[in-house]
Amino acid sequence: MDRTNAPPSAETPNSQEGTSPLVLLKPVERDLQQLDENLKRLISEENPMLMAAADQIFGASGKKIRPALVFLVSHATAQLTGLSEITPQHRKLAEIIEMIHTASLIHDDVLDDSDKRRGKETVNRVFGTRVAVLAGDFIFAQTSWLLANLENLEVIKLISQVIKDFASGEIKQTTSLYDCDITMQDYLRKSYCKTASLVAASAKGAAIFSGTSNEVKENMYDYGKKLGLAFQIVDDILDFTRSSEQLGKPAGSDLRKGNVTAPVIYALEKQPALKRLIQTEFINPEDLDTAIELVHQSGGIERARELARNMGDSALDCLSCLQKGPMRSSLEGMVDYVLERLH
Amino acid sequence: MDRTNAPPSAETPNSQEGTSPLVLLKPVERDLQQLDENLKRLISEENPMLMAAADQIFGASGKKIRPALVFLVSHATAQLTGLSEITPQHRKLAEIIEMIHTASLIHDDVLDDSDKRRGKETVNRVFGTRVAVLAGDFIFAQTSWLLANLENLEVIKLISQVIKDFASGEIKQTTSLYDCDITMQDYLRKSYCKTASLVAASAKGAAIFSGTSNEVKENMYDYGKKLGLAFQIVDDILDFTRSSEQLGKPAGSDLRKGNVTAPVIYALEKQPALKRLIQTEFINPEDLDTAIELVHQSGGIERARELARNMGDSALDCLSCLQKGPMRSSLEGMVDYVLERLH
Repeated sequence: MDRTNAPPSAETPNSQEGTSPLVLLKPVERDLQQLDENLKRLISEENPMLMAAADQIFGASGKKIRPALVFLVSHATAQLTGLSEITPQHRKLAEIIEMIHTASLIHDDVLDDSDKRRGKETVNRVFGTRVAVLAGDFIFAQTSWLLANLENLEVIKLISQVIKDFASGEIKQTTSLYDCDITMQDYLRKSYCKTASLVAASAKGAAIFSGTSNEVKENMYDYGKKLGLAFQIVDDILDFTRSSEQLGKPAGSDLRKGNVTAPVIYALEKQPALKRLIQTEFINPEDLDTAIELVHQSGGIERARELARNMGDSALDCLSCLQKGPMRSSLEGMVDYVLERLH
Repeated sequence: MDRTNAPPSAETPNSQEGTSPLVLLKPVERDLQQLDENLKRLISEENPMLMAAADQIFGASGKKIRPALVFLVSHATAQLTGLSEITPQHRKLAEIIEMIHTASLIHDDVLDDSDKRRGKETVNRVFGTRVAVLAGDFIFAQTSWLLANLENLEVIKLISQVIKDFASGEIKQTTSLYDCDITMQDYLRKSYCKTASLVAASAKGAAIFSGTSNEVKENMYDYGKKLGLAFQIVDDILDFTRSSEQLGKPAGSDLRKGNVTAPVIYALEKQPALKRLIQTEFINPEDLDTAIELVHQSGGIERARELARNMGDSALDCLSCLQKGPMRSSLEGMVDYVLERLH
C-alpha cells in the first residue's frame, strides 16, 4: 500500500516496539522470492526493451506488500477449506496484482513527470515518456491476458473492476483539485478507487481460489478495503504531520497540488477561511503555510486519525473468520503497521 | 483499419469505379448509429472530464471500419446459425473493439507527440499528456471490464491477446528502428500485432457469438488477419508512392523514422547500398531521398504490391463459407477497398 509515498524510515524494521514489515512478510518469504523470479521472466521474455527497464520497473514497487497480502490470505483461507498447499492460481493472482500495481506506478510517474520513486530513477526519467507509456500499457495488457487464462469469471470481473477503478480514481482526483465542496464520502470513494480497490480484490481473489464460502470472501474483501482506506488516510495525515525530511517531499504537498484529503475536509467544517485560501490555488506560497496552520488548529488531523483507527478496527474484525496462526497474525500485523505510522 | 494514415481521398465515395467505404457500410448503418450513441454514453457517464474530451476521443477513429466489420460478420454468421437477429453480445463486442482501437490511438498520439489526427486536434494537444494517458488507460480498463461481463472465456482470451499484441507491436517497432536485418517474417509479425490482430479477433469474436462451427470461426479469423495485413502492406507502400500532399505527411516518413517496411525489405535484397544509407539514420536529409529512389528502382514496391494482393486473395477465400448476400458482398468489398488504394 505504498502507492503514494511511504516514509523512508518505514523501510527499516523497528527493533523495540512497533511492527516491522519484514517480520510480517516472514511467513510468505519464499513465496515472494518465487514471485520475484516469475515476474522478471514474465515481463522480459517477450521484450528485450522491457528487460532493460526491469530494474526500474520492479524497483518502483517497494516491499511487495500487495502480493504478500495475497499469499497471506491464500494460506489463511486454504487452511479453512483444507487445501494442503496454495495453488498455482493463487501464485498467478499475486503476480497479476503486483503487475497491476507496477503498471499504475509507471503511468503515475508519467502523469506527475516524476524523476524518482523510492530513491530509484523512474522509467520515464531513464527511458523517456514513450517507453514508460508503452511499458505500462504492456504490463496492463499482460495482466488482462494472464487473468483471462486463469479461467475464473468471478476473479476476472473482480480484477477488471480494479483496473477501471484505478483510472476512475485518477480522473476523479484530477477533476476535483482545489474543490472544497468535496464530501467525506467523495474522498473515501476516491481513496477506494486509488488504493483500497486493489487491496480488497487481492484479498477476495485469494479467498475465491481457496474455494471458501461467500461469507469468508466478503470478509476478506472488507478486510482489504478497510486496510487500504486506513493506509490512504494515514498517508494523507502524514503529509501534514511529518517533516519535509521524513517525507522526502515538502510537507503539505498534497494540499499544494489541490488534493483535498481527510484532515482538510474536517478542517473545512471548522475553518471557513481555509476555503478561500485553497481556492487561491496557493499562487502566493504564504497562503499554503497559513492553510497548513489552519488544518493543524482545526482538530482535523485528530479526527482523521480517529477515522483511520476506526477503519483499522473494522479491518481486524473481518479476520475473526480465519484460524489463529502465523498467517492471521501477519494479517493483523498489517493493520497495526499501517496505524503505527501515525506515531 | 485506419490505424496509421488513410489518405484523405479515401473519405469521399468514388462514383464511377472503385469501392466506396460508405456503400460497404450501408448494410450496418443503423447498427453503427446505435454504436455511436452507446459509446458516448459509456465513456462519459462516469467521467465529466472524458465527456469534455469525447469529441476528440471519438473523432480520432474515423470511419468506424472495425465495428462495421464486427457487425457485418455478426449478421453473416448469424444467418449461418439461424439467429433471427444479432445479439446484444455482438453489439457489445463492436463497442469493445472500437474502444480498444480508440484507446490505442490516444496513446499512439502521446507516444508520437502528434497534434492532429484526421484533421482534428488530438486529445494530448487539447487536454495535455496527463489527460491523454489517463483517458487511454480508462478506456482500456473499461474494455477489460465490459469484456469480463460478456462472460465468454473464449472471447475474453481472444481480445485480451489483442491488447497484449498492440503493446508488443509498438515495442517491437520501437526496438527495431533502422534495423536492416529485419526479415519479412518479422515485418509480418509486427504488422499482425499492430493492425491485423484486432481485425482478426473482431471477426472471430463475432462468429463465436453467433455460435458457428470452429471451421467458420477460424475462417473469419483468417479473413480478418489477411485483410489487416493487406491493409498494413498497402499503407506502407503508399508511404512511397503517394505525394506528400495526398498523404498529409512527407513521402518516405516511415523510412525516415526508421520503420523498415515491406517495400524496403524487398529492396534491401537487390540494393545493398540501401543498408548503409538507412544505418546513417538519415542525419543527412539527402540520404533519405537517395534511399527512397533506391526503393523505387529495386522493384521492391511491385513485390510488396504482389504480397498485398496475395493477402487480399487469401482473405476472399475465407469468405466462401458464408451465404451470398449484402453482408458477404460488403466483406468482399472491404478487401477490394483496401487493395484499390494501390491504384
